Amino acid sequence: MLGRINHIAIAVPNLTAAAMPYKNLGATVSDPQPLPEHGVTVVFVELENTKVELLEPLGENSPIWGFLAKNPAGGMHHICYEVADLLAARDRAVALGLRVLGDGAPKIGAHGKPVLFLHPKDFSGTLTELEQI
Amino acid sequence: MLGRINHIAIAVPNLTAAAMPYKNLGATVSDPQPLPEHGVTVVFVELENTKVELLEPLGENSPIWGFLAKNPAGGMHHICYEVADLLAARDRAVALGLRVLGDGAPKIGAHGKPVLFLHPKDFSGTLTELEQI
Repeated sequence: MLGRINHIAIAVPNLTAAAMPYKNLGATVSDPQPLPEHGVTVVFVELENTKVELLEPLGENSPIWGFLAKNPAGGMHHICYEVADLLAARDRAVALGLRVLGDGAPKIGAHGKPVLFLHPKDFSGTLTELEQI
Repeated sequence: MLGRINHIAIAVPNLTAAAMPYKNLGATVSDPQPLPEHGVTVVFVELENTKVELLEPLGENSPIWGFLAKNPAGGMHHICYEVADLLAARDRAVALGLRVLGDGAPKIGAHGKPVLFLHPKDFSGTLTELEQI
């Protein structure tokens, strides 16, 4: 059911500074892409087998403000796994007693695909995103 | 220079509990493997393109005790990137002003291969491991 790791997200206070070491160590780094509907500006760090997404808050209601208030220098924010059928994955997660954040209805994520988040308390402190591919 | 993401490490207080949701969501999960020389017991969660490593402290001098003292429920600990030439990668990192942890000499990591860690302050709060493959 859990497929590829689609990305690892790192919340950062400053995208330019955050992207620099990856670029300088030879990774392919995208230009910053503002995603106002998600409250973040993102830089994609493309590795051979998956990617790192650097997230900077965009706007007052950014979902990562709280995280950065606790971790002002930034830090690892979540891991996103691909699933073939998000509703089936959600139902299985719920049947296992895992907590789905929000109202349990998939939202359209930053890649234009349906996503859900599972509670970090059910994954040893790791916020876990499921994305339908 | 940065190659594949070899693994994402999550420090956890209890491996059995930590491994359960991954197993229940259909991932291939290894038996716990004690690595006393590294101060951790590890469970490998194999995904299609990379792996998650769940790390539980082993012994009094475990390098993850400090992290778990700050994050008792566990949390994302580091990202490991593969490099073809670790000494070349280290020299480039140092030339860029990135800080290598310890004395800068590669150690043999949990997979029996040379590794180095780069300071989380130079990666927006993300501890970064380089492993020679």
